[in-house]
Amino acid sequence: MNYRKIPDETIKRLPIYLRDLTGFSREGYKNISSKELSGHLGANPWQIRKDFSYFGAFGTCGVGYDVEKLITQIKKILKLDTIHKAALVGVGNLGSAVLAYPGFTMYGFEIVAAFDNDPKKVGKKTNGITVQDVSKISNLKNKDVKIGIITVPRQASQKTADALVNSGVTGILNFSPCRIKVPKKVKVITINIALDFARLPYYMPAR
Amino acid sequence: MNYRKIPDETIKRLPIYLRDLTGFSREGYKNISSKELSGHLGANPWQIRKDFSYFGAFGTCGVGYDVEKLITQIKKILKLDTIHKAALVGVGNLGSAVLAYPGFTMYGFEIVAAFDNDPKKVGKKTNGITVQDVSKISNLKNKDVKIGIITVPRQASQKTADALVNSGVTGILNFSPCRIKVPKKVKVITINIALDFARLPYYMPAR
Repeated sequence: MNYRKIPDETIKRLPIYLRDLTGFSREGYKNISSKELSGHLGANPWQIRKDFSYFGAFGTCGVGYDVEKLITQIKKILKLDTIHKAALVGVGNLGSAVLAYPGFTMYGFEIVAAFDNDPKKVGKKTNGITVQDVSKISNLKNKDVKIGIITVPRQASQKTADALVNSGVTGILNFSPCRIKVPKKVKVITINIALDFARLPYYMPAR
Repeated sequence: MNYRKIPDETIKRLPIYLRDLTGFSREGYKNISSKELSGHLGANPWQIRKDFSYFGAFGTCGVGYDVEKLITQIKKILKLDTIHKAALVGVGNLGSAVLAYPGFTMYGFEIVAAFDNDPKKVGKKTNGITVQDVSKISNLKNKDVKIGIITVPRQASQKTADALVNSGVTGILNFSPCRIKVPKKVKVITINIALDFARLPYYMPAR
């Protein structure tokens, strides 16, 4: 099956389904209906059924979906069935917070290297990882690190992206509040928490 | 018009449209077509037209949408046409990063108070804000602070949410990797960067 045909909006929801299905699995569920899953997620059951149908997962009437099978399928589609090594550049407040973030291992990510341009930080350990000078980013070559995390100030983000791409990185998680230019084969996901913030007042009650 | 009928998925996209429209406005654009906007965003023109139609914005054929009018409308819908005061609890690495985050002011947010339970942090200034002890969260009452930002460790998140809600907060941005229980009138947006991370490998080229 050609997974590439799955819409981006569905791909965005798959990690959320995966998180919740893992929770249901931990609680001992063997099967789950789209209705049960939707109650947990606040999504429409028809949306869930449609999303799952893209990769050929169809629930059995009155029984629902096989939880473990669904977890395996989603992990395979998202390519989360292997370990992904990542390198982080910029060990400031945000970078340190990302290094300490417990949520990554759940999805098979492992941050194996950290870089900074501050001589005071280089050589120090943060969360078990020794910070290296940014000039050493090129050492990532042949180390099977395909993911780069950019937590540097805005003005250094393009330079950092270039160094990562030159070292073989093909996926970037960009926390800098600006666009970075990369070759077409490199995927960038930009995280802008202000965009989440911006929709909060809409849902708040009027004073 | 009853804005409440706008689907959540559209509401999620409105801050992104707003950011890009603001950029086009800065560059001197008076009008913009859904096609121009879509090229910038990587979204479908029909999706953009449908999203805008929910609040009665219809482009003129051959001219497009009035950029300033659209900005004003989106800000009004998202209730971003006023200043929103916010308080942050948990001045660790993540909290410090959020306090220093430049993206908030763009949407009219102003962090006016910060709290921590660490005596070493209390009384110190971070980004112009003096950190107060968490016992002082109740002082937020009658200060028109309706938004709370939770950047405490997981085990303290529920207690923090309770304190914020008791002090009149009706919107919470939760960075803790767990669900928090709040009264129905309080809106919580949980930020889980691992969910963004999790869809990165899908888009990366095979080795």
